Amino acid sequence: MSADDLNRRSSCNAPEFTCPLPDVGGERIWMAHGGGGRFMHRLLAEEILPATLYAGESGHGPASLHDAARIVSDGTQLAFTTDSYVVRPLFFPGGDIGRLAVYGTVNDLAMAGARPRYLSCALILEEGLEITVLRHVLNSIRLAAAHVGVHVLTGDTKVVERGHGDGIYINTAGIGIIEHELTIAPDAIQPGDAIILSGDIGRHGIAVMSAREGFEFETAIESDCAPLHSAVAALLDAGLDVHCMRDLTRGGLAQAVLELNEQRNLSAELQEDSIPISSPVRAACQVLGYDPLYLANEGRFIAIVPPDAAERTMRTLRALSEPGYEQATLIGHFASMSGPVTIRTPLGSRRVLDMLSGEQLPRIC
Amino acid sequence: MSADDLNRRSSCNAPEFTCPLPDVGGERIWMAHGGGGRFMHRLLAEEILPATLYAGESGHGPASLHDAARIVSDGTQLAFTTDSYVVRPLFFPGGDIGRLAVYGTVNDLAMAGARPRYLSCALILEEGLEITVLRHVLNSIRLAAAHVGVHVLTGDTKVVERGHGDGIYINTAGIGIIEHELTIAPDAIQPGDAIILSGDIGRHGIAVMSAREGFEFETAIESDCAPLHSAVAALLDAGLDVHCMRDLTRGGLAQAVLELNEQRNLSAELQEDSIPISSPVRAACQVLGYDPLYLANEGRFIAIVPPDAAERTMRTLRALSEPGYEQATLIGHFASMSGPVTIRTPLGSRRVLDMLSGEQLPRIC
Repeated sequence: MSADDLNRRSSCNAPEFTCPLPDVGGERIWMAHGGGGRFMHRLLAEEILPATLYAGESGHGPASLHDAARIVSDGTQLAFTTDSYVVRPLFFPGGDIGRLAVYGTVNDLAMAGARPRYLSCALILEEGLEITVLRHVLNSIRLAAAHVGVHVLTGDTKVVERGHGDGIYINTAGIGIIEHELTIAPDAIQPGDAIILSGDIGRHGIAVMSAREGFEFETAIESDCAPLHSAVAALLDAGLDVHCMRDLTRGGLAQAVLELNEQRNLSAELQEDSIPISSPVRAACQVLGYDPLYLANEGRFIAIVPPDAAERTMRTLRALSEPGYEQATLIGHFASMSGPVTIRTPLGSRRVLDMLSGEQLPRIC
Repeated sequence: MSADDLNRRSSCNAPEFTCPLPDVGGERIWMAHGGGGRFMHRLLAEEILPATLYAGESGHGPASLHDAARIVSDGTQLAFTTDSYVVRPLFFPGGDIGRLAVYGTVNDLAMAGARPRYLSCALILEEGLEITVLRHVLNSIRLAAAHVGVHVLTGDTKVVERGHGDGIYINTAGIGIIEHELTIAPDAIQPGDAIILSGDIGRHGIAVMSAREGFEFETAIESDCAPLHSAVAALLDAGLDVHCMRDLTRGGLAQAVLELNEQRNLSAELQEDSIPISSPVRAACQVLGYDPLYLANEGRFIAIVPPDAAERTMRTLRALSEPGYEQATLIGHFASMSGPVTIRTPLGSRRVLDMLSGEQLPRIC
């Protein structure tokens, strides 16, 4: 990205204040660069991908724009992905950094249509961290991996001085096996395709924010942090012609649809009143001024399927025994004309969804 | 590990002082836990491995005690490894964190006898990092990956607030292909096996320390940071019956031999005057009070081979065109009796090598 883009003036430049927009100084990294929005998008597209990434064997261009890269080796198709977890605080209602580090990477593999098999686990510990905290997080990793049936095969442990970390950062890389012949990727999205949302949105963002800021709501809001591999397996086992899937992490539902739309160069329309949002999340968003469409989720995804498969996709998801999927629903469609992502409000008007610069809540994963 | 072990009293407990030994307080993580020595060894063995790691398909027990785990998938044998890089400073004579992040993970794959093929690259950036610094590091990653012929296939970028990181932390996970029938692992070491060292030791530790502390020596000491995959390929192509390999990173040559000896339950003797150490490194160690046997290296390894293969292993390494290997040499043997690792001094006496608690220099990788 150009220096001007990265450094355009902002009214916010007190150095001790965490500001999502760049200040007047030299070219620097800002919190917004990690938020999943426009700034991060540009940093990836203009600095990180060209410098490092190899256009993967999938033929879909730089692999990291998807949730996982595809590797073909002696006829076996593997998916390979990585994520670092820097969530703050380490523990939040419904989860912790350990569970997130397993399920997050499992979900990236699942979104590529892969069956998660192996994980690596690399810890960056901050000097002074209590061993009981580490034990709790390690136990979460163990339980989460056992729940999914993935094996943590290799690891690494580094320690940084007090004040140079934040308790625990975790990186997990994952390897999955692709056992179907579908091409599940943004390129496979067709005009007219239906967008199926797997459940209600916004829980994870609000849960982390309330744990961080000490807010208490009348009804406790728990993170939706959960593995998506069985839902994906159910869709594939049902023989559904899944064109693409995307989990709704940083930047939420809005960012996911916006990115797919940008990559495929189509347009999309969502129906606002079809998007399930729980009353406590809706109330918290109203109090705090957040837009739930942009809130992070850690156990929700969208599946893009042909219009005639929409009904069966919904039914397959709703039939899952895991909680949340009973609200799986059709929320919109892609259209053939190149254009924006719009959302039709309950009153019938349409507004254009735009990428945020950063995100509403930093460090939610 | 027991709470008592982790927290035994020490005379050093000023909270703002970075102390390699635990203070009087509760059970906490200390710098020593990341140093590659006894504290780290125990943290891994007693907390991290039991909680998370699956005893890999290699049948050699928890996979992470080796440099990489082995995966068998449809007849293809893969190696899988991960490392986070937190070196301080980011740039040092002979390398930087980007080069280290590629070569370090490539070397872990090479030590498992695998041909490095794919890397992931996950960045944790600190708010305020200059983009020019990021660009420089990304360029190093690109050049190093191209030099080795590995593809960076997938990545992740997180940003943490100013003061919660240290510029850049990098995690790379790696996948390699194992194309031989040898079992290269500590278990394969036999009594009588020769220990071949690939070159002179101690450069990386001294280079990072001098960059960090601003020391200047008469002769500039550059890190040995380099990929080891072609040396390994040369040994395998020569049909040498390699029993084990280990790169000499945290804890140096001493820690590597001590760990192999402990895992295999043998004993070993090294010849001190056979170990190549350059005059500038030797001089720096004398001035600073470091033992070069424990200094980290990032481009040196030991190969454990049958005694009758020692000569040809040395010759194969010395024939390599890359610098450093001209000093490849036989430095000792494993013996059948269970016992310590000893080193015979030039004067003929023997001393026992012991694991350090932490390491002499933290954050060298």
